[in-house]
This record gives sequence, C-alpha cells and structure tokens, in this order.
Amino acid sequence: MTSTFDLPQRLLLGAGPSQTTDRVLRALGSPTLGHLDPAFGELLDDLSARLRTVFRTENRVAFPVSGTGSAGMETMVANLVSPGDRVICGIHGLFGERMADELARHGAHVVRVEGEWGRAIPLELMTEATKDGFDAMFVVHAETSTGVAQPLDGLADLCRANDALLLVDCVTSLGGHRLELDAWGVDAAFSGTQKCLNVPPGLAPFTLGPRAVAKAETVDCPSWYFDLSLVLGYWSGDGGRAYHHTAPINLIYGLHEGLGDVIEEGLEARWARHERAHGALLRAVRALGLERLAPEGEQLNSLLAVRIPEGVDDAAVRGSLLLEDGIEISGGVGKFAGSVWRLGVMGFGANPEPQRRLVEALAKRLGHEPADALAELDAGWTSD
Amino acid sequence: MTSTFDLPQRLLLGAGPSQTTDRVLRALGSPTLGHLDPAFGELLDDLSARLRTVFRTENRVAFPVSGTGSAGMETMVANLVSPGDRVICGIHGLFGERMADELARHGAHVVRVEGEWGRAIPLELMTEATKDGFDAMFVVHAETSTGVAQPLDGLADLCRANDALLLVDCVTSLGGHRLELDAWGVDAAFSGTQKCLNVPPGLAPFTLGPRAVAKAETVDCPSWYFDLSLVLGYWSGDGGRAYHHTAPINLIYGLHEGLGDVIEEGLEARWARHERAHGALLRAVRALGLERLAPEGEQLNSLLAVRIPEGVDDAAVRGSLLLEDGIEISGGVGKFAGSVWRLGVMGFGANPEPQRRLVEALAKRLGHEPADALAELDAGWTSD
Repeated sequence: MTSTFDLPQRLLLGAGPSQTTDRVLRALGSPTLGHLDPAFGELLDDLSARLRTVFRTENRVAFPVSGTGSAGMETMVANLVSPGDRVICGIHGLFGERMADELARHGAHVVRVEGEWGRAIPLELMTEATKDGFDAMFVVHAETSTGVAQPLDGLADLCRANDALLLVDCVTSLGGHRLELDAWGVDAAFSGTQKCLNVPPGLAPFTLGPRAVAKAETVDCPSWYFDLSLVLGYWSGDGGRAYHHTAPINLIYGLHEGLGDVIEEGLEARWARHERAHGALLRAVRALGLERLAPEGEQLNSLLAVRIPEGVDDAAVRGSLLLEDGIEISGGVGKFAGSVWRLGVMGFGANPEPQRRLVEALAKRLGHEPADALAELDAGWTSD
Repeated sequence: MTSTFDLPQRLLLGAGPSQTTDRVLRALGSPTLGHLDPAFGELLDDLSARLRTVFRTENRVAFPVSGTGSAGMETMVANLVSPGDRVICGIHGLFGERMADELARHGAHVVRVEGEWGRAIPLELMTEATKDGFDAMFVVHAETSTGVAQPLDGLADLCRANDALLLVDCVTSLGGHRLELDAWGVDAAFSGTQKCLNVPPGLAPFTLGPRAVAKAETVDCPSWYFDLSLVLGYWSGDGGRAYHHTAPINLIYGLHEGLGDVIEEGLEARWARHERAHGALLRAVRALGLERLAPEGEQLNSLLAVRIPEGVDDAAVRGSLLLEDGIEISGGVGKFAGSVWRLGVMGFGANPEPQRRLVEALAKRLGHEPADALAELDAGWTSD
C-alpha cells in the first residue's frame, strides 16, 4: 500500500514545481476554516493586498483562481475575449502555443506572431501585427519552455492606441524576475504558485485592471467555473463574500505565507538575488560545458535553459540525478524535447546551497571534476 | 499583519468544508514532489484505484479534476455535451439550478424537471421528460442545499433505452451516503473532497464509464483546462504521463490519505455510521424543537437540513455558535436562505463527540437545557 508519508524527498530544481519551504508546508497543514468564516475573510483581504504588492499593481481585482496556472489563462480568455475578437498572440515557446489554442477555442481570430524559440520576440514583429487593428494582445513574459524573458516595452502603447487590452502570462516570473504590471501598462495577468513563490501547484494568482474589468462586462463568459461576474462576488464583492464555489482554503494558507516570504525579503532584493543566482549558476554550468539557450539580455533569471551537449544521454542523466542524487531538473519540451535541460532558479532554489548540490551532481553525471564549476559558482555569488 | 498561524480553530459542522483530520493535514504538509516523478506516478495510480473503490466502479477513468467540485461539473459538461444536445436536468435545489446554468452555457437544450426543494424528484417526473428523446440525463444525488438524497432507481434504464448518458453530482454523498456507480448504471460522476472525505477543497473526484468515454470522443471541448483528451494523457495515458497542467500535488496527498481513511473503515461500515449519526443528531435536535426538511426516506445521511423555528434569529445564532462556541454550521441558500440550517454529518463530524459539542451549543443558543437533547443523541448512538 502506497502512503504519502513514505514518499522520497527530492530537491526540486527544474521548471516547477519548485521546492516548497517549511513555512509554506506548515501553513498548508493548518486546520481548515470555513470559506465564509470572517477570520478567513480577513486573511483573503490580506492575500489580495499581498498579491497587489508582488504584481506591482493597484488593481482592485487581485486574487488566486481556484486551479493551476493554466486555469488563470482560461479565466483570462473566457472573460476578456469575445468570439470574433482579433487577438495578437506572441508565440516563442510552448506557452504561447498553448494560448493560441485557448484563444481559438474561444472563437478569437488569432493573429499569430511567431518568434524564434529561445529568443525574445522583437517589438517590430509585434508592431507589424497591429496594422489591421486588434482587440487584445497577449505575450508570455516568462517562457518556461525556453528560459526567455519577453520585454514588454512599447506593447502597452500599441494597445492603448488601438483601445486593446494587454494580456500577460507571468507564471514563472512572479516573485523572481522583475515584473511591474502598472508601470508597464498590463491590463490582465495570470501566474502560478509553484515557481518563484515556492508554493505547491493548485492556484493561479490573477489580476485585472480597470480597462479589463470594463471589457469583461461586455463578454458572455462561456464558463461557469471561471465566470468573473460570479467569482468576484466572493473575492471583491461590496456587501461581503457571496458563495460561488468553495475556495481552496489550505492552498490559500500556503500562498499567503509564500507571498509573505517574498514581501519580507523585498521585491527589489529578491529580483537581484535571482539575477545573481542565475549568473552564478550559468558560470558554473559553463565550466561543465553547458551553454545557455537564451542570449545575454534575453534570459529569464528564474529559469536557466541549457543545451544538452552532443553525446550526452538526456534521460539517463536526469534519471540518475533524480533517483540517485535526489535532485529534479527538467527536460526540454516541444521542439526542445531531448536537446535542452531546464534548471530552476526559483525562490528557495536561487541560493548557493541548493545550487552547490546541483552543480556537484551534474559534474559527476557529466564526468567532470566539480572543483572548477564550484569555484565559478562561488565567484558568481561573491563578485561585484 | 495577518498570519495563517494565528487563525482561530473551529469545529466545522456545516455544509462544507468539513473538519479535516490530522492525517490529512499531515499529508498536505509533506514535501512536494515533481508531477512527473515516478514516485508520484505510483501514488497517482494508487489514488485512482482508491477512487474506484469509493465510487464503487471499475471505470478505467477515475481521477481528481484540478479544481473544486464545480470544476468537476464543468469537466463533465464540457466533455460530454455538444451544443444542441437535449439534456434532462433534475432540479430540486441550488445544485440542480447550477447545472442547468452550466448546460445552457454549453449550448445544450435543457429539459428542466423541477422537483420540490427539500424532496426527492419522483421517477414519474423524470420519465415524463424522456418522451421526446434525449442525449443525457443529469441528477444531483446529494442536494447540499436541502439535505435530500435522490434515488437513482430506474434512471439508468431510461437512459439506456434512449442511448443517453446518466450524469450524477455526488459531491456530498461520496464516502458518506450509499453510492454505487456501476450497480446503478451511472456513466459519469463528479464529487468534492471537502465533504465526507474530510479533505480541504480544491479537487473534484471524477469518473467516466466506457459509454461516456465514447461520447467524449465526439465532443469538441471548448475548454483547454478541462479537455479530457489532454487531461487524460496525464491521468490514464498508455505510454506514461504526458504533461498537460501541473497537478495540485499536495492536495493530492491529502486526498490520498482521506480516501485511505474511508477504505480502512470500509464503505458499508462508513455508510452505516453516517446513517446512525444522522439519526442520532435528528433525535437530539428534535428535542430542541427543530424539524428536518426532508421527509423520512428522502434524507441525505451526510447533511441534516432543519427548519429554523419561528422567532429565532438565524444570523445571531450562527454568529454566536461560530465566534463564541467555535462551531460552524451553515445557513440556508437559495429559497431557503434565512429559514434553514444545514448541519454536516460528514466523516469526522459523524461521531458522538463533535455532535455532543454541537448539541450542547445549539441548546444554549436556543435557550434550552441540553440534557434531554444529549440523552436523545446518546440513545440514537446506542439503540439498535
């Protein structure tokens, strides 16, 4: 008989879920309150405030959708896109493709802007796509399939000029890579808990600005579960919290504490730590013969995607790392399946100690002495 | 600053979430594994086997949808109902109404069969609705808004004769009130974790029989998140588990242990305990002047809905119970808002000790001496 109490312990340093912290795990296991209990309501108010802080927004609507990151994506589309809407969709990895599928299911006219996998999409390509008018523009800020951060500069202006919404996937950047929704003019964004927040999967942090709220009021939401006109009666109702569905209470405890970690560290400090951790790990893995997929300046600090060297057996290395060394890294997906490894640099994982364990194990599996790589790692953490 | 570690502790004896057990809470707080880790995969296989046991089914497809109970409802409709399908929808409470809304959003021709709130729907009414043919029939087995159990006798025959599917909501019966999906000819069912399983909300146990699987293959699912042609690549793929979305890992730990509790007790024993607990609580609250909404023979053992006596202040009593006695019960919803209380008899709550606390507190709040009611409670637990 399998038991959850006999499961092996791993160090999670892949593309997510990331390592959960003791604080978060302790919160998860706290006694369940009712979803209409006033004490829980206070916690929810505080949770929304914390989400605003980490999203860098003043949006009234900020709450976690009751599902994983992709449930946030579906909530965005089901409430903000009407059949026939022209939606520009930036695609430079798996999660852009996923959004194109989601948009098509909701009857959007999808204007695909295809960037290179492993690169950011040039602003000129996005601009070019706007010439026939559009209702919304979507980009993946943090492409988890390639480790690329998409700059958002200029996109809000394009959208404002067309009275269109700017929609963003920030699943793997929230709490790890600089993200400033209001300053960047983002109208709606969704994220996940199992990346830089070190909270188990199951919730999708979500926010809508006033232009998006206005658009949502014109859309016939085809989903009952994700219908914001119902959901927000619970999350931001004026006369108290109206029952729609039962909120995932214990996961919300975990998210509350995960956000607490971020806020106590400070966003700027946390972003700087992730940048340093990414740089240090890059130096270390270069000493092992691995090269980053993203060019300098386009990298996502929270995820380091590297090319697998010729002659190295992807599955064998990842299998040994997991089963013998107890460390999880992720393989490639989509067109990078078999040719890329994805190394998480997320919250707890963006620290010297877990990175040292990873570098030592990787060196062993690739047939290197670890000393040089570890020296590079240390240098990356201590250099100016 | 609010913290999840300073929250008050309550005894949850309302319509859900129910009291979570220590075993489940400990599982929730266990270290997170990756969703593609082979050790987690073994746990998922075991979880599916446990779901089959408690659903009383041999269905190959049995897994938890990554959302609350209503996400199970949406998965059912999005995958099994095509626009234009005639779907008979039994409505005898809030959750039948909710399904009618869900069906209409998916373009179904909804044939409403309206029963009385607080009663089961007579078979003749359902039969009458079948005369023009239909593609699917939906009933709420356990109406959480009224505390009524809907008998399913005869419904499968009606469906088979029309080559239609029988769809069931068993959110509040799974693990508490007799439920035998295969024996009753149910083609698809969804449930929730936060009722008789004593697991926090966030997952929807779900199962599909072979006729439903065949139908799903003909439906264009409008949802990406709930699309079973994608989701089942993870949950019941033949060549391993294909990533669709990241499963809610720690909640799955909790569900695994909650189901473990049910299976170790034994389904028949557990159903009998809930029946006895319901009867004992009914005797006790009758001594306090409360009457059950459901007539004898139509009651849902896991939820006792009672009429609030004339002159009693609903909100004041529930507020004192919660804030002074630390016990949560639920008010009425829909047409019973303000006139009904719902007392949970769910798993942990279906035991003498929590019931004694509830009866004592209720007696105090209603201005009664508790002795007679407590004697009735004890008699209910010890009589043959």
